[in-house]
Amino acid sequence: MEKMIYEIRGLSNQNDDLLLNETIFHTSNGYVGVRANYEEGYPQGYDTIRGTYINGFYDIAEMKQAEKLYGFIEEKQTILNVADSQGVKLLVDGEEFSMFTGTVLESRRWLNMLEGYAGRKVIWRSPKGKEIEILIKRMTSFFQKSLFTIEYMVKALNFTGKIEFISFHNGEVMNYSNPEDPRVASESVKNLYPFDVRIAQEASYIKARTARSGLSVCTGVKNILTGEGPLFREAVSEIDVNGFLVIHSLKADIEKERTVTLTKYTVFSDSIRCEDVELHARKEMAKAVSVNLAAWYERQKDYLEEYWDNCDLEIYGDDDLCLAVRFNLYQLIQSVGKDRYSNITAKGLSGEGYEGHYFWDTEMYIQPFFILTNPDIAKNLIEYRYGTMEGARENARILGHNRGVLYPWRTIMGKECSGYFPSGSAQYHINGDIAHSIVAYYLATKDLEFIAQKGAEIIFETARLWLDVGNYHKGNFYINDVTGPDEYTCVVNNNYYTNVSAQYNMRWASRFYYLLKENGAVDKVANKLQMTEAEIKEMETAAECMYLPYDEEYGINPQDDSFLSKARWNIGNTPKEKFPLLLHYHPLYLYRHQVCKQADTVMAHFIFEDAQSIETIQKSFEYYEKITTHDSSLSTCIYSIVASKLGMKEKAYNYLGNSAKLDLFNIHKNTRDGIHTANMGGNYMAIVYGFAGLRLKEEGLFLAPLLPEQWEGYRFKIKYEGSKIMVQVKRGTSTFSLLSGEAKQIWIYGKEYLLQDTIILTEEVER
Amino acid sequence: MEKMIYEIRGLSNQNDDLLLNETIFHTSNGYVGVRANYEEGYPQGYDTIRGTYINGFYDIAEMKQAEKLYGFIEEKQTILNVADSQGVKLLVDGEEFSMFTGTVLESRRWLNMLEGYAGRKVIWRSPKGKEIEILIKRMTSFFQKSLFTIEYMVKALNFTGKIEFISFHNGEVMNYSNPEDPRVASESVKNLYPFDVRIAQEASYIKARTARSGLSVCTGVKNILTGEGPLFREAVSEIDVNGFLVIHSLKADIEKERTVTLTKYTVFSDSIRCEDVELHARKEMAKAVSVNLAAWYERQKDYLEEYWDNCDLEIYGDDDLCLAVRFNLYQLIQSVGKDRYSNITAKGLSGEGYEGHYFWDTEMYIQPFFILTNPDIAKNLIEYRYGTMEGARENARILGHNRGVLYPWRTIMGKECSGYFPSGSAQYHINGDIAHSIVAYYLATKDLEFIAQKGAEIIFETARLWLDVGNYHKGNFYINDVTGPDEYTCVVNNNYYTNVSAQYNMRWASRFYYLLKENGAVDKVANKLQMTEAEIKEMETAAECMYLPYDEEYGINPQDDSFLSKARWNIGNTPKEKFPLLLHYHPLYLYRHQVCKQADTVMAHFIFEDAQSIETIQKSFEYYEKITTHDSSLSTCIYSIVASKLGMKEKAYNYLGNSAKLDLFNIHKNTRDGIHTANMGGNYMAIVYGFAGLRLKEEGLFLAPLLPEQWEGYRFKIKYEGSKIMVQVKRGTSTFSLLSGEAKQIWIYGKEYLLQDTIILTEEVER
Repeated sequence: MEKMIYEIRGLSNQNDDLLLNETIFHTSNGYVGVRANYEEGYPQGYDTIRGTYINGFYDIAEMKQAEKLYGFIEEKQTILNVADSQGVKLLVDGEEFSMFTGTVLESRRWLNMLEGYAGRKVIWRSPKGKEIEILIKRMTSFFQKSLFTIEYMVKALNFTGKIEFISFHNGEVMNYSNPEDPRVASESVKNLYPFDVRIAQEASYIKARTARSGLSVCTGVKNILTGEGPLFREAVSEIDVNGFLVIHSLKADIEKERTVTLTKYTVFSDSIRCEDVELHARKEMAKAVSVNLAAWYERQKDYLEEYWDNCDLEIYGDDDLCLAVRFNLYQLIQSVGKDRYSNITAKGLSGEGYEGHYFWDTEMYIQPFFILTNPDIAKNLIEYRYGTMEGARENARILGHNRGVLYPWRTIMGKECSGYFPSGSAQYHINGDIAHSIVAYYLATKDLEFIAQKGAEIIFETARLWLDVGNYHKGNFYINDVTGPDEYTCVVNNNYYTNVSAQYNMRWASRFYYLLKENGAVDKVANKLQMTEAEIKEMETAAECMYLPYDEEYGINPQDDSFLSKARWNIGNTPKEKFPLLLHYHPLYLYRHQVCKQADTVMAHFIFEDAQSIETIQKSFEYYEKITTHDSSLSTCIYSIVASKLGMKEKAYNYLGNSAKLDLFNIHKNTRDGIHTANMGGNYMAIVYGFAGLRLKEEGLFLAPLLPEQWEGYRFKIKYEGSKIMVQVKRGTSTFSLLSGEAKQIWIYGKEYLLQDTIILTEEVER
Repeated sequence: MEKMIYEIRGLSNQNDDLLLNETIFHTSNGYVGVRANYEEGYPQGYDTIRGTYINGFYDIAEMKQAEKLYGFIEEKQTILNVADSQGVKLLVDGEEFSMFTGTVLESRRWLNMLEGYAGRKVIWRSPKGKEIEILIKRMTSFFQKSLFTIEYMVKALNFTGKIEFISFHNGEVMNYSNPEDPRVASESVKNLYPFDVRIAQEASYIKARTARSGLSVCTGVKNILTGEGPLFREAVSEIDVNGFLVIHSLKADIEKERTVTLTKYTVFSDSIRCEDVELHARKEMAKAVSVNLAAWYERQKDYLEEYWDNCDLEIYGDDDLCLAVRFNLYQLIQSVGKDRYSNITAKGLSGEGYEGHYFWDTEMYIQPFFILTNPDIAKNLIEYRYGTMEGARENARILGHNRGVLYPWRTIMGKECSGYFPSGSAQYHINGDIAHSIVAYYLATKDLEFIAQKGAEIIFETARLWLDVGNYHKGNFYINDVTGPDEYTCVVNNNYYTNVSAQYNMRWASRFYYLLKENGAVDKVANKLQMTEAEIKEMETAAECMYLPYDEEYGINPQDDSFLSKARWNIGNTPKEKFPLLLHYHPLYLYRHQVCKQADTVMAHFIFEDAQSIETIQKSFEYYEKITTHDSSLSTCIYSIVASKLGMKEKAYNYLGNSAKLDLFNIHKNTRDGIHTANMGGNYMAIVYGFAGLRLKEEGLFLAPLLPEQWEGYRFKIKYEGSKIMVQVKRGTSTFSLLSGEAKQIWIYGKEYLLQDTIILTEEVER
């Protein structure tokens, strides 16, 4: 049970810790996220990233190019900080509660991942000696996505008197800026203009519109005061129209040892998802207050119960790691968009880093988790890509392609937002990544209906692009001038990862074409796309002739055509302070060397493992290991998976290392800026795809568990073709159980079994 | 004689023509350039690039990068428009002269390239019927570089009355901007702040300083009124301190058929070249008015007489072309910097295009002309590079190199100013280009003393860089991730041009090392650079092992390692409106194709012709010809030269085509923005290095004249090792004359001769 609650006692008032905890205890439901600021604020001069974010809600920001060339992107979408409803000041007989005055007798914060709220408890003695116990619970509801609640309970410990809550609803907000931090915006730009504020049915509503994207948002705030025993109450709301600020004052008498509670409801609505934002916000508010808070808590708990029942991962023998992994999975369900207008950002809804953009991280690091545990969420992520296909089509045209679509490298609503194309738009592999994720969804669910409706269209259109990008040379199909996952070598020819991924994309275009043809469902999509069987044949030929670089001398797949002819970077001789290299070396210098920011060919050997012999994979792993800096957090989990595949348990364990603890234990000292969602998914993969050797193939589900020496065991649940399966690995015993659904053929250590009830294997097989 | 005067009669008042003539008739001396605006201005609403520029005088402008990576350039130097002294209004009995009121009875403008001034003549009838004849001569003095004069003569044709000149000196100026033209700045940024204005000895002085570069400039203006017959005169100067504007009013009586003349002197001084700009301006003004204007005209004529005597190029049988070529050579002497603080900008001092930056254009297109005709000017251009070596060293460090220097791709005072590195900083060949130009200077002059003093240092330091850039692979020396001259393929491996140029650079480093060693002069420079003979050996080995890509199948040098494996662009099938390609295709799309913006390998085959067999050169020419768009104006002249080399007279003639007429006849419709200095030099080369087959080699001077069918002949003069030589080519006869200096061994059509007096050959030899 405690492995589902993360708690800090005896809180520090250091600014850095406060910033970190704003992230750790932020609450989010995939639609709205609120950073965990103290309700009463910090003292003057403290830095804070005080933010409330709506997934997919954006403005357009200028992105000037130093030199303009054709097709260079000059504006980007950027996530917005919307109205702030976190503020609650508490006056105890006129004395204002603060963690920085009086005496803090006890203080703790916790995150309850079973019940879905962030808690805070303080016992405080005022400068004049009044003692109170404060208990605050914050929740963003998974059930009603528009709803954020703060339950603020105050108990008088040693006095009878008066208390007052001053509850703020502030429409004048800006995105975070810090002139001293090169990683975030150095100057504030106003993107969101509030234009209307009103009070209705004791709730305040503030409407605001964006500067350039033409979107609007409405926030509604309602405060309800309840208490034990007879109590005098008074509530007044004042509007400061110039400041678009509403101040709700709620006063009450409080008796010794009794509790008074402020329940603050905030609802959010935005014009992406509804026509009339105020009307919608009012309806959402009515719904929010129609049942009491306890009922919302109950629903939250139910939602999470099901979530954990689907996805729980337990590690025996390393409680910290187990907690960290669960924290990660909790953040993933907090972060992932659950409607077709949103996806999952690099920082979830916990911060503004990477501007709320969606990357390939979704498909290659996060979706694999959802595919196995919550296929409906995975499906929704694909729906989002389907919904933004027009942007991808436009992007392909900008880049000169007359057919197919090219998904943007980073985007919110579908337009390319990368300012430096060599490590942005040039990463064409995102097309293959999205195609791969659809195939993976299909392999886990066999949901051919969805493929017919939407999936195939993406697969066909992404595959078409490769035909336009590539060219034949001496009988081989070449893909020139693209960038693979490794951004330390950009705009290269025949990047192995890209080519093998394009091959897979085109082969599956053909496979789906004929599957749908058998089904009678192909004509609809083919007609829509004006696609003929001849084009499918063209794809088959290109896939067949796809050039996959291989070096005889080393017995490896070179990362690209010229990679092996470059000077090899000596990582051992590079001073520690020179990492990450991208902050200390000009891109040209990096491009000129054999040095990788992250797994590239090694990643291809995981994702497309059947394209090469195990010897090539082994030798490549050894080769690239020496020249990979892992300057990207997307790297070590992949190395861990491939090490597992190659049976190198110790290496696999070491590559996993502390990376699962990245955010919960603030390993990289940058969690203050937000969580790292891709890393969270990647670590899940390192366990389930890595140690447990899970693979989804057309032949079926494959497993081949390893147990690191340092653990006592691990256990996880997945869904496969509608059946629920649990895998438990302990020293000397692996247990595979069918928890629900039909019996399934599965492959364990390469041998086929029918999983009807439970299969117990008592020996770990050498891979 | 008329082939030295360009004249336009019956001037158009179309705005486009006025803008064009601002360029065509601009006056410049390599230090200061003044665009040829009408002294009285244009009507409201007319667009004008009203500019006065000082070579090398710059401010620093911000250049924001859309995404910041290490070493990205974020500020650039930019040429400034300095105080405006062109303005002169003329009142004839109170009626203001304008080309747009009254009646223009006659109007013409001309450029006198023998005497070095731009002339303007107007006969005008005022609305009230007063007729005057105006004659204006504008000169920037080659003798006193700080001096610009306007001689404004007015003759009363049909009346006796009063005239008034209102002469302006305006310190409040900005650079040109036009929100509708993507090629120039869209918004005005104030870079120059006037801070002092005063009148002293009837002259006005305005001082201004730059916003960020810390430079200052002073302009002095003095007006002198003279006239025939007895006349009343009155002169008043008013200062508008807020506007930093001085208005000089000069009134006079004028009698019928008599002339009154305003002589307006402007002097310029700047803090790059002197300590106290005002003091210096006053001295220059005193010098300017110490003799009368006729004396300055005389000196101007003398200067040009010598210039033409050194460099004249005459074409028989095509007067337009002959005039255009002379116009070009005139613009080159107008544009080239004559002190060590300046070089030659892409637009000379005739406009703000390319921001007054210096490129490789100097060394590869312009300097070859000066080396043959004015070696002192060529030497000064090298001095400029020597003076900016510290910037090149810093640039090399930014790009990760621990030794050597890397000259910036575009700069004013030596700092890299290119905002997009793949077609900027990555053009490492500029190092080889500069080294090559020094070798060429040496070969033409044998000035080993200068090599010892300065040249060798540049050659050694540029050569050193290659050792750091390149790496050995399978016994070959590779240069990876650089960009060659052709910007349609960027950041490639083993660009043929770059590699052969680096090889030449390193071989000459060694050659000079031993030449200076023999001379006892090597230790000084070697010690200064901490260079050892071992490093020279390292260069020799790298040069020896230099990988020069060669394709057996086609028998050509591929532009780079992967060039031939890309899809070939079909130029014939590309719609005309899609050229230049860079304005219609994303760089990535261009990079992915075999298509060249300009001569690249073909250029290498001209510059480093001895590196390949004639068969390879021939086949390469034929190969690249089909895929070169000549979207750069630096291309056709090189194709013309190589066509000449290959004996393809007709092709050579066609490649020269109209390109020599580019500016004089406004072929590309963009001469309004300024002249194209590199094209001017390139056309000279197409004739002298192309048709006449001139080459400078260590073995001696080579010539091999061809005569295009369309011409009757041509003639040019060059300096070689201190001797002056004339080459005259006519149908059936080539004449080589020693005009002055010692006899020289020269090679004609590959045969050695001693040129003592005159050699006449009566047959053109097949090349």
